[in-house]
Amino acid sequence: MPSCGWLLALSVAALTGNTLANKQTERNCSTSPPYLPSTAVNTTLQLQRLRAQMRPLNITAYIIPGTDAHLSEYIAPRDARLAFMTGFTGSAGTAIVTQTKATLWTDSRYWVQAERQMDCNWELEKDGSISRVAEWLISEIPLGSEIGFDPFLFSINMEESYTVELASSNRSLKSIPDNLVDKIWSTKPPIPPDSLFCLPGRVIQRSWQMKVEHIRNEMRVNPYKPTALLLSALDETAWLFNMRGSDIPYNPFFYSYTLLTLDEIWLFVHTERVTEDLKVYLNTSCKGPLCVQLKSYNSVLDDLKTYVERAGVKVWIGTEYTNYALYEIITPQDKLLTSSYSPVLTTKAVKDETEQRILRDAHVRDAVAVIQLLMWLETAVPKGKETELTAAQYVNDCRSKQKDSKGPSFDTISASGPNAALAHYSPTEGTSRKLTVDEMYLVDSGGQYLDGTTDITRTVHWGSPTSMQKEAFTRVLMGNIEISRTIFPTGTRGVNMEMLGRRALWEVGLNYGHGTGHGVGNYFGVHEWPVGFQSNNIPFRAGMFTSIEPGYYKENDFGIRIEDVAVIVPVKTKYGHNYLTFDTVSLVPYDRKLIDTSLLSSQQIQWLNNYYETIRKLVGPELDRQGLHQVKEWMLRNTEPFVAPGSSATSGSSSLTLVLLAVTVFHDII
Amino acid sequence: MPSCGWLLALSVAALTGNTLANKQTERNCSTSPPYLPSTAVNTTLQLQRLRAQMRPLNITAYIIPGTDAHLSEYIAPRDARLAFMTGFTGSAGTAIVTQTKATLWTDSRYWVQAERQMDCNWELEKDGSISRVAEWLISEIPLGSEIGFDPFLFSINMEESYTVELASSNRSLKSIPDNLVDKIWSTKPPIPPDSLFCLPGRVIQRSWQMKVEHIRNEMRVNPYKPTALLLSALDETAWLFNMRGSDIPYNPFFYSYTLLTLDEIWLFVHTERVTEDLKVYLNTSCKGPLCVQLKSYNSVLDDLKTYVERAGVKVWIGTEYTNYALYEIITPQDKLLTSSYSPVLTTKAVKDETEQRILRDAHVRDAVAVIQLLMWLETAVPKGKETELTAAQYVNDCRSKQKDSKGPSFDTISASGPNAALAHYSPTEGTSRKLTVDEMYLVDSGGQYLDGTTDITRTVHWGSPTSMQKEAFTRVLMGNIEISRTIFPTGTRGVNMEMLGRRALWEVGLNYGHGTGHGVGNYFGVHEWPVGFQSNNIPFRAGMFTSIEPGYYKENDFGIRIEDVAVIVPVKTKYGHNYLTFDTVSLVPYDRKLIDTSLLSSQQIQWLNNYYETIRKLVGPELDRQGLHQVKEWMLRNTEPFVAPGSSATSGSSSLTLVLLAVTVFHDII
Repeated sequence: MPSCGWLLALSVAALTGNTLANKQTERNCSTSPPYLPSTAVNTTLQLQRLRAQMRPLNITAYIIPGTDAHLSEYIAPRDARLAFMTGFTGSAGTAIVTQTKATLWTDSRYWVQAERQMDCNWELEKDGSISRVAEWLISEIPLGSEIGFDPFLFSINMEESYTVELASSNRSLKSIPDNLVDKIWSTKPPIPPDSLFCLPGRVIQRSWQMKVEHIRNEMRVNPYKPTALLLSALDETAWLFNMRGSDIPYNPFFYSYTLLTLDEIWLFVHTERVTEDLKVYLNTSCKGPLCVQLKSYNSVLDDLKTYVERAGVKVWIGTEYTNYALYEIITPQDKLLTSSYSPVLTTKAVKDETEQRILRDAHVRDAVAVIQLLMWLETAVPKGKETELTAAQYVNDCRSKQKDSKGPSFDTISASGPNAALAHYSPTEGTSRKLTVDEMYLVDSGGQYLDGTTDITRTVHWGSPTSMQKEAFTRVLMGNIEISRTIFPTGTRGVNMEMLGRRALWEVGLNYGHGTGHGVGNYFGVHEWPVGFQSNNIPFRAGMFTSIEPGYYKENDFGIRIEDVAVIVPVKTKYGHNYLTFDTVSLVPYDRKLIDTSLLSSQQIQWLNNYYETIRKLVGPELDRQGLHQVKEWMLRNTEPFVAPGSSATSGSSSLTLVLLAVTVFHDII
Repeated sequence: MPSCGWLLALSVAALTGNTLANKQTERNCSTSPPYLPSTAVNTTLQLQRLRAQMRPLNITAYIIPGTDAHLSEYIAPRDARLAFMTGFTGSAGTAIVTQTKATLWTDSRYWVQAERQMDCNWELEKDGSISRVAEWLISEIPLGSEIGFDPFLFSINMEESYTVELASSNRSLKSIPDNLVDKIWSTKPPIPPDSLFCLPGRVIQRSWQMKVEHIRNEMRVNPYKPTALLLSALDETAWLFNMRGSDIPYNPFFYSYTLLTLDEIWLFVHTERVTEDLKVYLNTSCKGPLCVQLKSYNSVLDDLKTYVERAGVKVWIGTEYTNYALYEIITPQDKLLTSSYSPVLTTKAVKDETEQRILRDAHVRDAVAVIQLLMWLETAVPKGKETELTAAQYVNDCRSKQKDSKGPSFDTISASGPNAALAHYSPTEGTSRKLTVDEMYLVDSGGQYLDGTTDITRTVHWGSPTSMQKEAFTRVLMGNIEISRTIFPTGTRGVNMEMLGRRALWEVGLNYGHGTGHGVGNYFGVHEWPVGFQSNNIPFRAGMFTSIEPGYYKENDFGIRIEDVAVIVPVKTKYGHNYLTFDTVSLVPYDRKLIDTSLLSSQQIQWLNNYYETIRKLVGPELDRQGLHQVKEWMLRNTEPFVAPGSSATSGSSSLTLVLLAVTVFHDII
């Protein structure tokens, strides 16, 4: 699934498409009385109460971001403050409330949704960049005003951006660590009672004690001599202790922070959720550098303050995932050491041998589920009963039957025809299209398994694709293959080779508006930072897993994305050392009908054939084991080797020779 | 010519190579008395005098950088303060003098040279990063000390880096605008008396008045509303006024600054060098927004101060090329507007129609000179009399005979065998190798012409190259071609596609340690910032010129570089708009003997054949015009089209068909 950054041009498609289909479902605040659809939420009461909270604090405006204190991509219902205040449930947005106005900013993919969910207390603004929000503030609130914000919900960068934008305006931010929305949110969902749990030994190579020692060593060798490391992102603590939870949808995380010093371990959690077994697991009853001290999740600020007051301490934080509340109390500056990512995130990015093995295993079982879906659709769709929703349900069901399944890793994107051209589309009762042999169909889905997280996209056509659809699909596939087969020196950055995913499209003037890939992990979030192809991702090293997902989207018509997960592996080269390449671990064939082999180079055909051989070798035995004989036949049919176009029936030339000769470039993975 | 950033691994080759060849030529300060080669310079007196200057200022150390006040890549002899103080004449280095020590930092390509040129007053340190230099300062000078520096010779970034590194050490920088070396340098060369001159009308499309209006418009539309633009880089003022000079070797620049306001033009030059004609040209006798006010070069600081004291002004600077002396007096901060590059540099980067036409023309005449060299070497080398130096002289002579020649654009790199593996090698009497049919030969040279600057590298072999040499050469060529033939959307950054220059090398574990290309201009510096393939270059737009120069260097053995200059041009694509590609304007064939066509794709062969056709079409008539019939025959022989390997005599297959069919991918340049 693409991680972020869809271009505006694509997002506008979402608006247009939805508007045409659902004309009467949006509010109209210009009539008297205003027209409100049934989906709109009455927010009068919560606004009254919030404004009452604001008055004694002397703040003129209050900012409500959409994230949580861990700057998570997905948030728990109890962190959905933006939705509680506005009615709007989209995953991206910022709201600001003054005594007279209430305004929501969200990007173009959510404009229609906001008009359906908000009542007329709210205005919608369409450019949510901080500079535009700041301009709005400057025009709306008087000189000298203070603007309240919850520093737990602000990243360090966000605070800095607002401060810069407001700098010479004589208006300023005021940090209010007690969230004002929480004070009025009487129906706020409680912390889920589910207990946290530790992973079974079979999916673990390094015990938490080994990880702690490893990270402490990173601290010791750091020239700036940090005495403590503060972990704020939820997957940091989960990784360190080999634990998981179920606080966040699709993400097996639990609310937590960790302060790891050279001789102590402070684990901030809702302690009532820690079972006796877990206490034993964590050595909570002893004293010593490998004994965990349980601290209350809510005391993190106070406890961190106490730590920072000690003489000679220096706290290391990763600025990308530490909230401003924790950052601002680490003073003076010489007690602070920052890097973009904590050593936990950079260490975690490189999977150990066990993690690599089980993550590959999870992809074999995941492939079974996706192949089952594709086979089923092939016969079910022509019967005319299936929809985007039933297809999504089918693949979710198939996954749930696989060993160690823990549900989907994100809301399945099951999109037919024009819906597939929409950014981050997931079908609902209102939008779900019937699947037909006349439209292309895109399915981007993934599973959580105890041993790994998966994420795969296939695009298919059950009828007769146009030549443009075939060309676009083939060129997207060429992009996927060109990245996958590239050999590069250790330390090359993804951003410096992601154009290989676009080059075949560029050649004919096509492109796509999202990123080309993101890290994935072992039973973690489906977007695992900091691995990937963007400018703020770290250089590639062997053992990292990333998605590779070029695409092409034709507004109001169709969408294509081909997404695989690959692991970075060392490769033998003729002359050099320390070279890497990708080894694709997603194992589902591409729709043959959409591939125009005449566009492919001999190396690309050879890569495809090697890949299909791997699918047969790895998925075949798993299908046997599961007794899925029909599925195996389908898989075998769909992984027949390709031959170069010159040697097809319609052309008698002997140019296959050249193709086979040219294969010498191929390499051995070591 | 590669612009910078050779990797250490390659640079070490330089050291090893030279050390082996010249064992007795380096100083030995550990013997008593120390051994000093004849090339070492006695620096006792200048050190004594500098230290005497330092004492009354209460500075404990004084930093001597190697650049000039315009942060120029090449400096005039009168700015060679580092060489005057140390004896070391290499182009990169920093020296620091305390009352007891004198230390030079330079990178690995210059270590041997430093050991040959410095006496035992000086120590050599080998890691010249600012953090290492700062560590040295902290260990050598007492707490509370001040370190003097000339702010004219510091970039803004450099000052900031030192300040950050010294931040918590209780030692600090002290800005001393009167250079201390200049005070003791009685033999410092004077300003060259040559007059400045303006370019002839035939090479100009936009008069200086038009350029001034254009830049003023950039100022007006800037949302931060600058009232003035300060130009510091020498090519900024030269470009704005369509003027040139001869103050700097290889670079037709003259010492200058410009302060361009919305209604005034202050040109800071050595006014005594401005002729009466130039005064007329510059409208110096009138008052008004298009009348130039001549100011003394040395009064820039005082005059800028006066300007900044005015109410409501805001001075726009490009931080990459403004020295710290000018930056630090623009206070308070709200009188300052910074961008990485001034609008003059970004405007200049896109050549107008005339500039494009004449720069292409210059490359046609330049190709004649390089082809003459290659033809001559082919017959002269086997006779056993030619050397790197005579070859360099030959190509310089050939260029000097071409119309509008203004000499070489840099010191010709003429390098045989192992010398070609050395970074930035230029032959001297001591190092020049005889050219033989047993070694590869690399020649990287360029010319200044009134209409353009050129830069081209060819690598040849007159005997029997090894298969490894052929493979490496072919893969370097593949890199050059892959960049050249790529189609990409307007605004793509070079850094995001430069891996195409390396990919064919990476495939077999080879690589190179320098950048992949740099901007070039019309009778300007051969490295014209900010165009190119590095991370601090700006996105590509139609009308920019850049070199494309992948290479491969085998230590102590041989070096390969294939460098062409290309202009970025719009290209028609099947589906999209606003796509660009490269059109190569260097017009010299590659050594056929070194090309293994079996490694090339059909598209690469087609590109080569198209390129060779272009050479014939453009250089052929020029050779006719110059009556160089033999040279034309040589050119025609060396631009015969290539055929795919399958159709050569040794293989009877018909796979050429495939190659010819595959050519359909080709595009029309619009």
